[in-house]
Amino acid sequence: MTQPGKVFLIGAGPGDPELMTLRALRLLQTADTVVYDRLVSREILALAPPEARMIPVGKSPHNHPVPQERINDILAQEAGAGHIVARLKGGDPLIFGRGAEEAAHLAEHGIAVEHVPGITAAQGAASVAGVPLTHRGLATGVQYVTGHRAADQVLDLDWKRLANPDTTLVIYMGVASIGQIAVGLMTEGLPGSTPVLAVSRATTAEETRLLSSLGRIGTDSRDSGLAAPTLFIIGKVVSLYRGQVVPDEAITQVSARG
Amino acid sequence: MTQPGKVFLIGAGPGDPELMTLRALRLLQTADTVVYDRLVSREILALAPPEARMIPVGKSPHNHPVPQERINDILAQEAGAGHIVARLKGGDPLIFGRGAEEAAHLAEHGIAVEHVPGITAAQGAASVAGVPLTHRGLATGVQYVTGHRAADQVLDLDWKRLANPDTTLVIYMGVASIGQIAVGLMTEGLPGSTPVLAVSRATTAEETRLLSSLGRIGTDSRDSGLAAPTLFIIGKVVSLYRGQVVPDEAITQVSARG
Repeated sequence: MTQPGKVFLIGAGPGDPELMTLRALRLLQTADTVVYDRLVSREILALAPPEARMIPVGKSPHNHPVPQERINDILAQEAGAGHIVARLKGGDPLIFGRGAEEAAHLAEHGIAVEHVPGITAAQGAASVAGVPLTHRGLATGVQYVTGHRAADQVLDLDWKRLANPDTTLVIYMGVASIGQIAVGLMTEGLPGSTPVLAVSRATTAEETRLLSSLGRIGTDSRDSGLAAPTLFIIGKVVSLYRGQVVPDEAITQVSARG
Repeated sequence: MTQPGKVFLIGAGPGDPELMTLRALRLLQTADTVVYDRLVSREILALAPPEARMIPVGKSPHNHPVPQERINDILAQEAGAGHIVARLKGGDPLIFGRGAEEAAHLAEHGIAVEHVPGITAAQGAASVAGVPLTHRGLATGVQYVTGHRAADQVLDLDWKRLANPDTTLVIYMGVASIGQIAVGLMTEGLPGSTPVLAVSRATTAEETRLLSSLGRIGTDSRDSGLAAPTLFIIGKVVSLYRGQVVPDEAITQVSARG
């Protein structure tokens, strides 16, 4: 009987291959099978062994080529056949990455799993923009929330708890819903002048940034046609962007790595 | 006149040297000067060039050997003298790391700064414990908050907004205040049975974990003498710890890398 392999649930980071961890690279380089999401870049995939079996299971926002159940099955089959599997996800598998769902499925099949964290998009965006996620006097904490919702569902967020002027709010997967999110936050008391920084494809060559405010981000985001994945950093910390205080309603589009 | 150098504000990650990013390692290996915090491990410092000037500026909870202003001056002086400076911080410099304060000071002195993100403690703890920070049906988002306060100040947190049963709450630097935090959260409606996982020195050889509940974590934390840095993960996601649902009031102490 074949000895079962192992699945490494690996965070590939925000995009730039150099923002992978040393462990992520080492494990990728020893993989027999690489199962990867759409957000994992070609440069990162090129680091896998040439003989590794490469299985794309990427999901785009309105196109789910491989359902989660099928991904679970692929991982269990590959590891069950004795292979070392690198399951590569953008960002960190345990932050909006469904890593624990895959781990639970594999555990049910008696397959060993190890989690390897990755730099999440909020950290990638903060580092390229020079905007801290927490800062004395501006933000005592930071919160990550997803703006994604299933096609037939309304976005059901707790606006009262999210509208905290002393916390940085980071919205993942919010391009389609940022206008609605901004209205929800303003209804619960956040000023329309609260600065917002949108970062599209942070840390990649296609990175773009949009500096706006809560009052205008819905319109600005639509007009600018930001490419997914886009992350929104909302809060007073954004006033530190490039060392300048953001004037009310100011808008600047900054091109990649400018 | 000497050409000014540059300061790289580098996140060294949660402890395990293999959880550094590839960029962090590359830049550390090219540094003339390494300015490092107490939480950066010896294994990581050993990766600096043998000829690099090593300057410890570590702060322990009740002992501030090098004030922030002095750290700022050291960085400006070293870079001003033309050196490439690796400023190494535990975790991520832009999450409870005061990285933006140092960057602002350097910018005032005309010194170039680059931010390099690191795996923050919450991600390190989540990965070793196999506990997701977000999870369908259990947590729509995650919030990081610091429990640290100046010696003569009270902990002034917005309990109502923090007591969100649908969000994972991670407390950094909370060993001294976790009992007070738990009371604040329960007063605002979080059940005392809400599971809490404390992880001390996550991803290092000295890692220990304590599984408890909101109702008992104050007492448990005191009794167990958890070593700093300790991080507390609070919320329904902790029920996934080791795949077991946590029984009410259950307590288990798990030793390092068990």
